[in-house]
Amino acid sequence: MNDMAVSPRHPHSDWNPALYLKFEGERARAARDLLAEVPLSAPAFAYDLGCGPGNSTELLRRRYPDAELLGLDTSEAMLAHARERLPDAHFQREGVDDFRPDHTPDLIFANSVLQFTEAHEALFPRLMSYLPQGGCLAVQMPDTAREAAHALMRMIAVDGPWRERLMPVVKSRAVIADAQDYYDWLRPHCARLELWRTTYVHPLDGAQGVVDWFAGSALRPFLGPLSEKERESFLASYRREIIKEYVPRPDGVILLPYPRLFIVAVR
Amino acid sequence: MNDMAVSPRHPHSDWNPALYLKFEGERARAARDLLAEVPLSAPAFAYDLGCGPGNSTELLRRRYPDAELLGLDTSEAMLAHARERLPDAHFQREGVDDFRPDHTPDLIFANSVLQFTEAHEALFPRLMSYLPQGGCLAVQMPDTAREAAHALMRMIAVDGPWRERLMPVVKSRAVIADAQDYYDWLRPHCARLELWRTTYVHPLDGAQGVVDWFAGSALRPFLGPLSEKERESFLASYRREIIKEYVPRPDGVILLPYPRLFIVAVR
Repeated sequence: MNDMAVSPRHPHSDWNPALYLKFEGERARAARDLLAEVPLSAPAFAYDLGCGPGNSTELLRRRYPDAELLGLDTSEAMLAHARERLPDAHFQREGVDDFRPDHTPDLIFANSVLQFTEAHEALFPRLMSYLPQGGCLAVQMPDTAREAAHALMRMIAVDGPWRERLMPVVKSRAVIADAQDYYDWLRPHCARLELWRTTYVHPLDGAQGVVDWFAGSALRPFLGPLSEKERESFLASYRREIIKEYVPRPDGVILLPYPRLFIVAVR
Repeated sequence: MNDMAVSPRHPHSDWNPALYLKFEGERARAARDLLAEVPLSAPAFAYDLGCGPGNSTELLRRRYPDAELLGLDTSEAMLAHARERLPDAHFQREGVDDFRPDHTPDLIFANSVLQFTEAHEALFPRLMSYLPQGGCLAVQMPDTAREAAHALMRMIAVDGPWRERLMPVVKSRAVIADAQDYYDWLRPHCARLELWRTTYVHPLDGAQGVVDWFAGSALRPFLGPLSEKERESFLASYRREIIKEYVPRPDGVILLPYPRLFIVAVR
């Protein structure tokens, strides 16, 4: 659904679909790459976990015109967007942690959402257990814990008047594991398993482009607890640090490397 | 064409298509991923640089049934294989360094070959200059310089009776640059430019699987100058070191991370 590397356990305002969709083209690429490796030709029933504004569901609809599609998300704003976009799919407010399918799905598609969940060593086998033989679990998760753009958010959070308020966000951690851990957890439940990690290199419009990229995703929990004035100040510091870390190319573009882990498991 | 990270300037026997094709499925994935991002619907003429045994040319044929295809390679053994495989394409013995197209191509496809060439800051703009407006250069190169499996080959090469003979191979270097360098070199000549780096995680059959993987590619220049007996000894050492570095999973599988850089530039 999104690209936030921190846990969303801390309350903040609902997602902003317009801001999130600003980079829809770039973000769609990952969902497309994930779907391209799903080896099913015509699933009857597919779940789209963390469907967000319906962009991933739309890809599923395009490839599988006859499938019944059910998108789940926790954000009402996102679901409203998705329902309008895809009247021929179903959408339901539900998180991943308590996801227990009512229908036996042929496909569980989880594009950029499981990074918000914990205990993957239990979750991933549980998701596999919902599938029939030949069913597929397809997962993509941002793997940004080691990226400077994310370290800088935390650095600024602990170095300002907002420090105490942001401490829970700073302490939250990206929970995604190594590729080999997912291999170990899934292999006993799979007939076939593909793993890869792609770092997309996004050409963004200078430091402001990087700020805009994250404003709709990873910066949200940091900005949520701040006043309007503090937000401006936080973002100005962030912009200054970004430009030191990501040297603009001769044309002013900043190349933002964005790593994502992909898992396609067939039961 | 192959996955060797060292320069092929040192003489060694011709490529072995059977050995190279042993992992055709895994190697085809990268060519497929590259082709998927080529935004041309029906190129009239396409070059397949470093076509090897014709596996990449076959992908081009499948997507572009009406295109004229010309595959170039320096290996006669590989070309013979390719001609048999694809009678409706043309193949010609020619290296990339002196490549000057006789036809104006709509597509220059270079899957896993430009890592053998030098001076990319001149080569890449030159390749772009052969394209008409809207033409596409699509490149994939293994980016393995920092991988342990490759460091270990050099380590064993300098630690045995073959040391002097292998010194030229040890000293040769992977010439591929950072993504941002390719951006800087290509951007002035492009209407559109996509860059990404994918690390495929290949499940191989233990240490022997890793040896087999590289025997058809990166190990070739190390093994070429050795006697049969020395080869066995070199490979036994390599197997021992691999198992220390890449811990087998509980099922005996070794997960080999294999990074590749992708560039799709449209003039």
